[in-house]
Amino acid sequence: MLCLACETNPEWVDVAIANPDLILVDHALCEKKAAAFAMAMLNRYPDKSRLVLDMIELAKEELDHLDIVARILIARGIEMTPDAGNPYAQQLHQHVRGQEPYRLLDSLIVGAFIEARSCERFSLLAKHAPTAEMRELYASLLASEAGHYRAYTDIAREYFPVDAVKARIHEFAAFEATIVKNLTNQPTMHG
Amino acid sequence: MLCLACETNPEWVDVAIANPDLILVDHALCEKKAAAFAMAMLNRYPDKSRLVLDMIELAKEELDHLDIVARILIARGIEMTPDAGNPYAQQLHQHVRGQEPYRLLDSLIVGAFIEARSCERFSLLAKHAPTAEMRELYASLLASEAGHYRAYTDIAREYFPVDAVKARIHEFAAFEATIVKNLTNQPTMHG
Repeated sequence: MLCLACETNPEWVDVAIANPDLILVDHALCEKKAAAFAMAMLNRYPDKSRLVLDMIELAKEELDHLDIVARILIARGIEMTPDAGNPYAQQLHQHVRGQEPYRLLDSLIVGAFIEARSCERFSLLAKHAPTAEMRELYASLLASEAGHYRAYTDIAREYFPVDAVKARIHEFAAFEATIVKNLTNQPTMHG
Repeated sequence: MLCLACETNPEWVDVAIANPDLILVDHALCEKKAAAFAMAMLNRYPDKSRLVLDMIELAKEELDHLDIVARILIARGIEMTPDAGNPYAQQLHQHVRGQEPYRLLDSLIVGAFIEARSCERFSLLAKHAPTAEMRELYASLLASEAGHYRAYTDIAREYFPVDAVKARIHEFAAFEATIVKNLTNQPTMHG
Protein backbone atom coordinates (compact mmCIF):
# COMPACT_ATOMS: atom_id res chain seq x y z
CA MET A 1 0.00 0.00 0.00
CA LEU A 2 1.36 3.42 -1.00
CA CYS A 3 5.08 3.44 -0.21
CA LEU A 4 5.07 0.90 2.62
CA ALA A 5 7.60 -1.94 2.45
CA CYS A 6 5.93 -4.17 5.05
CA GLU A 7 2.50 -4.89 6.42
CA THR A 8 1.36 -4.39 9.99
CA ASN A 9 1.75 -7.46 12.20
CA PRO A 10 -1.71 -9.13 12.44
CA GLU A 11 -1.21 -9.34 16.21
CA TRP A 12 -1.54 -5.54 16.38
CA VAL A 13 -5.09 -5.87 14.99
CA ASP A 14 -6.01 -8.28 17.81
CA VAL A 15 -4.64 -5.87 20.42
CA ALA A 16 -6.35 -2.87 18.78
CA ILE A 17 -9.80 -4.46 18.56
CA ALA A 18 -9.51 -5.64 22.17
CA ASN A 19 -8.84 -2.03 23.27
CA PRO A 20 -11.10 0.22 21.17
CA ASP A 21 -11.22 3.03 23.74
CA LEU A 22 -7.43 3.25 23.99
CA ILE A 23 -7.17 3.26 20.19
CA LEU A 24 -9.67 6.12 19.93
CA VAL A 25 -7.87 8.21 22.56
CA ASP A 26 -4.54 7.63 20.83
CA HIS A 27 -6.14 8.37 17.47
CA ALA A 28 -7.32 11.77 18.78
CA LEU A 29 -3.76 12.51 19.93
CA CYS A 30 -2.41 11.47 16.51
CA GLU A 31 -4.75 13.87 14.70
CA LYS A 32 -3.69 16.65 17.06
CA LYS A 33 -0.01 15.92 16.46
CA ALA A 34 -0.54 15.72 12.70
CA ALA A 35 -2.08 19.22 12.79
CA ALA A 36 0.77 20.48 14.99
CA PHE A 37 3.36 18.98 12.60
CA ALA A 38 1.76 20.70 9.61
CA MET A 39 1.83 23.99 11.51
CA ALA A 40 5.46 23.45 12.51
CA MET A 41 6.32 22.93 8.83
CA LEU A 42 4.67 26.18 7.70
CA ASN A 43 6.35 27.93 10.61
CA ARG A 44 9.75 26.64 9.51
CA TYR A 45 9.33 27.40 5.79
CA PRO A 46 7.20 30.59 5.68
CA ASP A 47 8.78 31.63 2.35
CA LYS A 48 7.53 28.53 0.48
CA SER A 49 4.03 29.48 -0.67
CA ARG A 50 2.94 26.09 -1.97
CA LEU A 51 4.03 24.39 1.24
CA VAL A 52 2.37 27.05 3.41
CA LEU A 53 -1.02 26.76 1.68
CA ASP A 54 -0.97 22.97 1.60
CA MET A 55 0.06 22.74 5.26
CA ILE A 56 -2.77 25.09 6.29
CA GLU A 57 -5.23 22.88 4.39
CA LEU A 58 -3.80 19.73 5.91
CA ALA A 59 -3.84 21.14 9.46
CA LYS A 60 -7.52 22.06 9.01
CA GLU A 61 -8.37 18.54 7.86
CA GLU A 62 -6.52 17.00 10.80
CA LEU A 63 -8.48 19.29 13.13
CA ASP A 64 -11.72 18.21 11.42
CA HIS A 65 -10.78 14.61 12.20
CA LEU A 66 -9.78 15.49 15.74
CA ASP A 67 -13.22 17.07 16.16
CA ILE A 68 -14.93 13.88 14.93
CA VAL A 69 -12.89 11.63 17.23
CA ALA A 70 -13.19 14.00 20.23
CA ARG A 71 -17.00 13.96 19.88
CA ILE A 72 -17.04 10.15 19.76
CA LEU A 73 -14.89 10.04 22.91
CA ILE A 74 -17.19 12.49 24.71
CA ALA A 75 -20.29 10.52 23.64
CA ARG A 76 -18.67 7.39 25.07
CA GLY A 77 -17.73 9.16 28.30
CA ILE A 78 -14.01 8.67 27.64
CA GLU A 79 -11.62 11.48 28.54
CA MET A 80 -8.72 12.39 26.31
CA THR A 81 -5.42 11.91 28.13
CA PRO A 82 -2.17 13.89 28.12
CA ASP A 83 0.01 13.06 25.15
CA ALA A 84 2.58 10.39 26.00
CA GLY A 85 4.45 10.76 22.70
CA ASN A 86 4.65 8.46 19.69
CA PRO A 87 7.80 6.26 19.64
CA TYR A 88 7.12 5.19 16.02
CA ALA A 89 7.07 8.80 14.78
CA GLN A 90 10.03 9.70 16.99
CA GLN A 91 12.11 6.91 15.46
CA LEU A 92 11.18 8.04 11.95
CA HIS A 93 12.19 11.62 12.77
CA GLN A 94 15.63 10.35 13.85
CA HIS A 95 16.34 9.68 10.16
CA VAL A 96 15.74 13.32 9.20
CA ARG A 97 19.04 14.96 8.20
CA GLY A 98 19.80 18.20 10.05
CA GLN A 99 21.04 20.27 7.13
CA GLU A 100 18.82 22.05 4.61
CA PRO A 101 17.52 21.39 2.03
CA TYR A 102 17.70 17.73 3.12
CA ARG A 103 15.84 18.50 6.33
CA LEU A 104 12.86 19.75 4.32
CA LEU A 105 12.85 16.73 2.00
CA ASP A 106 13.19 14.24 4.84
CA SER A 107 10.56 15.97 6.99
CA LEU A 108 8.05 15.84 4.14
CA ILE A 109 8.82 12.15 3.59
CA VAL A 110 8.39 11.43 7.32
CA GLY A 111 5.01 13.15 7.13
CA ALA A 112 4.15 11.02 4.10
CA PHE A 113 5.09 7.75 5.82
CA ILE A 114 3.14 8.52 8.99
CA GLU A 115 0.07 9.20 6.82
CA ALA A 116 0.66 6.06 4.75
CA ARG A 117 1.02 3.83 7.81
CA SER A 118 -2.07 5.44 9.38
CA CYS A 119 -3.93 4.74 6.15
CA GLU A 120 -2.90 1.07 6.23
CA ARG A 121 -3.94 0.74 9.89
CA PHE A 122 -7.23 2.58 9.30
CA SER A 123 -7.99 0.06 6.54
CA LEU A 124 -7.41 -2.78 9.04
CA LEU A 125 -9.67 -1.09 11.59
CA ALA A 126 -12.31 -0.38 8.92
CA LYS A 127 -12.47 -4.14 8.43
CA HIS A 128 -11.92 -5.53 11.94
CA ALA A 129 -12.99 -2.89 14.53
CA PRO A 130 -15.49 -4.28 17.06
CA THR A 131 -18.36 -1.85 16.44
CA ALA A 132 -20.07 -0.63 13.28
CA GLU A 133 -19.48 2.96 14.43
CA MET A 134 -15.71 2.40 14.54
CA ARG A 135 -15.64 0.50 11.25
CA GLU A 136 -17.51 3.36 9.57
CA LEU A 137 -15.26 5.96 11.21
CA TYR A 138 -12.09 4.36 9.88
CA ALA A 139 -13.57 3.66 6.46
CA SER A 140 -14.57 7.33 6.22
CA LEU A 141 -11.07 8.55 7.17
CA LEU A 142 -9.12 6.21 4.87
CA ALA A 143 -9.37 8.36 1.77
CA SER A 144 -8.13 11.52 3.48
CA GLU A 145 -5.11 9.75 4.97
CA ALA A 146 -4.15 8.60 1.48
CA GLY A 147 -4.73 12.18 0.31
CA HIS A 148 -2.39 13.46 3.01
CA TYR A 149 0.31 11.02 1.91
CA ARG A 150 0.00 12.45 -1.59
CA ALA A 151 -0.02 16.03 -0.25
CA TYR A 152 3.38 15.51 1.39
CA THR A 153 4.93 13.77 -1.60
CA ASP A 154 3.48 16.38 -4.01
CA ILE A 155 5.10 19.18 -1.98
CA ALA A 156 8.38 17.25 -2.01
CA ARG A 157 8.21 17.04 -5.82
CA GLU A 158 7.50 20.77 -5.97
CA TYR A 159 10.83 21.59 -4.33
CA PHE A 160 13.07 18.63 -5.28
CA PRO A 161 13.77 16.63 -8.46
CA VAL A 162 11.36 13.71 -8.91
CA ASP A 163 14.20 11.16 -8.90
CA ALA A 164 15.68 12.51 -5.66
CA VAL A 165 12.27 12.28 -3.96
CA LYS A 166 11.76 8.74 -5.25
CA ALA A 167 15.20 7.61 -4.07
CA ARG A 168 14.75 9.06 -0.59
CA ILE A 169 11.23 7.54 -0.30
CA HIS A 170 12.84 4.21 -1.15
CA GLU A 171 15.40 4.66 1.65
CA PHE A 172 12.75 5.72 4.13
CA ALA A 173 10.61 2.71 3.21
CA ALA A 174 13.44 0.52 4.53
CA PHE A 175 13.86 2.61 7.71
CA GLU A 176 10.12 2.54 8.31
CA ALA A 177 9.78 -1.20 7.75
CA THR A 178 12.55 -1.87 10.29
CA ILE A 179 10.79 0.34 12.83
CA VAL A 180 7.43 -1.35 12.20
CA LYS A 181 8.85 -4.87 12.42
CA ASN A 182 10.21 -4.01 15.89
CA LEU A 183 6.93 -2.59 17.22
CA THR A 184 5.50 -4.44 20.23
CA ASN A 185 1.82 -4.33 19.22
CA GLN A 186 0.64 -1.76 21.73
CA PRO A 187 -2.99 -0.49 21.75
CA THR A 188 -2.01 2.75 20.02
CA MET A 189 -2.42 3.83 16.40
CA HIS A 190 1.27 3.26 15.63
CA GLY A 191 2.05 0.80 18.45
CA MET B 1 -15.16 47.87 23.09
CA LEU B 2 -15.58 44.46 24.72
CA CYS B 3 -13.43 44.41 27.87
CA LEU B 4 -10.78 46.92 26.80
CA ALA B 5 -9.93 49.74 29.23
CA CYS B 6 -8.15 51.96 26.71
CA GLU B 7 -8.19 52.71 23.02
CA THR B 8 -5.31 52.20 20.60
CA ASN B 9 -3.09 55.25 20.14
CA PRO B 10 -4.18 56.95 16.87
CA GLU B 11 -0.49 57.12 15.89
CA TRP B 12 -0.50 53.32 15.49
CA VAL B 13 -3.13 53.70 12.75
CA ASP B 14 -0.86 56.09 10.85
CA VAL B 15 2.06 53.64 11.10
CA ALA B 16 -0.14 50.69 10.12
CA ILE B 17 -1.64 52.31 7.02
CA ALA B 18 1.82 53.46 5.92
CA ASN B 19 3.06 49.82 6.09
CA PRO B 20 0.23 47.61 4.80
CA ASP B 21 2.54 44.78 3.69
CA LEU B 22 4.20 44.52 7.11
CA ILE B 23 0.79 44.55 8.78
CA LEU B 24 -0.44 41.72 6.55
CA VAL B 25 2.66 39.59 7.21
CA ASP B 26 2.34 40.15 10.95
CA HIS B 27 -1.39 39.45 10.74
CA ALA B 28 -0.66 36.06 9.14
CA LEU B 29 1.75 35.27 11.98
CA CYS B 30 -0.89 36.32 14.54
CA GLU B 31 -3.48 33.96 13.04
CA LYS B 32 -0.92 31.15 13.11
CA LYS B 33 -0.06 31.85 16.75
CA ALA B 34 -3.74 32.08 17.69
CA ALA B 35 -4.30 28.61 16.20
CA ALA B 36 -1.19 27.30 17.99
CA PHE B 37 -2.39 28.79 21.30
CA ALA B 38 -5.80 27.11 20.95
CA MET B 39 -4.05 23.80 20.27
CA ALA B 40 -1.72 24.29 23.25
CA MET B 41 -4.81 24.82 25.44
CA LEU B 42 -6.51 21.61 24.32
CA ASN B 43 -3.19 19.81 24.75
CA ARG B 44 -2.90 21.07 28.33
CA TYR B 45 -6.51 20.34 29.35
CA PRO B 46 -7.47 17.17 27.40
CA ASP B 47 -9.97 16.14 30.12
CA LYS B 48 -12.12 19.28 29.71
CA SER B 49 -14.54 18.36 26.91
CA ARG B 50 -16.12 21.78 26.40
CA LEU B 51 -12.71 23.44 26.21
CA VAL B 52 -11.37 20.79 23.82
CA LEU B 53 -14.25 21.12 21.35
CA ASP B 54 -14.27 24.92 21.47
CA MET B 55 -10.48 25.12 21.03
CA ILE B 56 -10.63 22.79 17.99
CA GLU B 57 -13.31 25.04 16.46
CA LEU B 58 -11.32 28.16 17.22
CA ALA B 59 -8.07 26.73 15.83
CA LYS B 60 -9.89 25.86 12.60
CA GLU B 61 -11.24 29.40 12.27
CA GLU B 62 -7.79 30.88 12.88
CA LEU B 63 -6.40 28.60 10.16
CA ASP B 64 -9.22 29.73 7.81
CA HIS B 65 -8.10 33.31 8.42
CA LEU B 66 -4.44 32.39 7.99
CA ASP B 67 -5.39 30.85 4.65
CA ILE B 68 -7.15 34.07 3.56
CA VAL B 69 -4.22 36.27 4.57
CA ALA B 70 -1.59 33.89 3.13
CA ARG B 71 -3.36 33.97 -0.25
CA ILE B 72 -3.44 37.78 -0.22
CA LEU B 73 0.29 37.83 0.57
CA ILE B 74 1.04 35.40 -2.25
CA ALA B 75 -1.09 37.40 -4.70
CA ARG B 76 0.88 40.51 -3.72
CA GLY B 77 4.20 38.70 -4.09
CA ILE B 78 5.03 39.16 -0.41
CA GLU B 79 6.73 36.31 1.44
CA MET B 80 5.77 35.37 4.97
CA THR B 81 8.71 35.81 7.34
CA PRO B 82 9.91 33.81 10.32
CA ASP B 83 8.01 34.63 13.48
CA ALA B 84 9.80 37.28 15.54
CA GLY B 85 7.44 36.92 18.52
CA ASN B 86 4.76 39.24 19.87
CA PRO B 87 5.93 41.40 22.81
CA TYR B 88 2.35 42.50 23.58
CA ALA B 89 1.15 38.91 23.97
CA GLN B 90 4.31 37.95 25.86
CA GLN B 91 3.71 40.74 28.39
CA LEU B 92 0.10 39.65 28.85
CA HIS B 93 1.20 36.04 29.45
CA GLN B 94 3.52 37.26 32.22
CA HIS B 95 0.39 37.95 34.29
CA VAL B 96 -0.77 34.32 34.07
CA ARG B 97 -0.46 32.67 37.48
CA GLY B 98 1.50 29.40 37.47
CA GLN B 99 -0.75 27.34 39.71
CA GLU B 100 -3.94 25.60 38.60
CA PRO B 101 -6.82 26.29 38.40
CA TYR B 102 -5.69 29.95 38.16
CA ARG B 103 -3.43 29.17 35.22
CA LEU B 104 -6.44 27.97 33.22
CA LEU B 105 -8.58 31.00 34.13
CA ASP B 106 -5.79 33.47 33.37
CA SER B 107 -4.81 31.76 30.10
CA LEU B 108 -8.41 31.94 28.88
CA ILE B 109 -8.58 35.61 29.82
CA VAL B 110 -5.28 36.32 28.01
CA GLY B 111 -6.79 34.64 24.95
CA ALA B 112 -9.88 36.81 25.31
CA PHE B 113 -7.89 40.06 25.57
CA ILE B 114 -5.71 39.28 22.54
CA GLU B 115 -8.89 38.65 20.53
CA ALA B 116 -10.54 41.80 21.89
CA ARG B 117 -7.55 44.00 21.07
CA SER B 118 -7.30 42.41 17.61
CA CYS B 119 -10.99 43.14 17.11
CA GLU B 120 -10.47 46.82 18.05
CA ARG B 121 -7.49 47.12 15.70
CA PHE B 122 -9.30 45.32 12.88
CA SER B 123 -12.12 47.86 13.25
CA LEU B 124 -9.56 50.68 12.85
CA LEU B 125 -8.07 49.00 9.76
CA ALA B 126 -11.56 48.33 8.35
CA LYS B 127 -12.03 52.11 8.41
CA HIS B 128 -8.56 53.44 7.59
CA ALA B 129 -6.62 50.81 5.59
CA PRO B 130 -5.21 52.20 2.34
CA THR B 131 -6.90 49.78 -0.10
CA ALA B 132 -10.48 48.62 -0.49
CA GLU B 133 -9.23 45.01 -0.38
CA MET B 134 -7.69 45.53 3.06
CA ARG B 135 -10.68 47.46 4.39
CA GLU B 136 -12.96 44.62 3.26
CA LEU B 137 -10.62 42.00 4.71
CA TYR B 138 -10.63 43.58 8.15
CA ALA B 139 -14.35 44.31 8.10
CA SER B 140 -15.00 40.66 7.23
CA LEU B 141 -12.79 39.39 10.11
CA LEU B 142 -14.16 41.74 12.79
CA ALA B 143 -17.14 39.60 13.73
CA SER B 144 -15.12 36.43 14.22
CA GLU B 145 -12.58 38.16 16.45
CA ALA B 146 -15.44 39.33 18.67
CA GLY B 147 -16.78 35.76 18.54
CA HIS B 148 -13.39 34.44 19.67
CA TYR B 149 -13.36 36.85 22.61
CA ARG B 150 -16.72 35.45 23.64
CA ALA B 151 -15.54 31.86 23.09
CA TYR B 152 -12.72 32.34 25.62
CA THR B 153 -14.89 34.08 28.20
CA ASP B 154 -17.69 31.49 27.76
CA ILE B 155 -15.23 28.67 28.45
CA ALA B 156 -13.98 30.57 31.52
CA ARG B 157 -17.57 30.80 32.82
CA GLU B 158 -18.03 27.08 32.19
CA TYR B 159 -15.25 26.20 34.63
CA PHE B 160 -15.23 29.16 37.08
CA PRO B 161 -17.89 31.17 38.96
CA VAL B 162 -19.18 34.12 36.93
CA ASP B 163 -18.07 36.64 39.56
CA ALA B 164 -14.52 35.24 39.67
CA VAL B 165 -14.26 35.51 35.89
CA LYS B 166 -15.59 39.06 35.93
CA ALA B 167 -13.20 40.14 38.67
CA ARG B 168 -10.17 38.67 36.91
CA ILE B 169 -11.20 40.23 33.57
CA HIS B 170 -11.34 43.55 35.39
CA GLU B 171 -7.79 43.05 36.70
CA PHE B 172 -6.51 41.99 33.29
CA ALA B 173 -8.15 45.05 31.69
CA ALA B 174 -5.83 47.20 33.81
CA PHE B 175 -2.75 45.07 32.98
CA GLU B 176 -3.61 45.17 29.29
CA ALA B 177 -4.22 48.92 29.23
CA THR B 178 -0.82 49.55 30.82
CA ILE B 179 0.85 47.33 28.20
CA VAL B 180 -1.00 49.07 25.35
CA LYS B 181 -0.20 52.57 26.60
CA ASN B 182 3.51 51.67 26.52
CA LEU B 183 3.47 50.28 22.98
CA THR B 184 5.73 52.13 20.54
CA ASN B 185 3.41 52.06 17.51
CA GLN B 186 5.24 49.48 15.44
CA PRO B 187 3.88 48.24 12.06
CA THR B 188 2.59 45.01 13.62
CA MET B 189 -0.91 43.97 14.62
CA HIS B 190 -0.23 44.49 18.32
CA GLY B 191 2.71 46.94 17.98
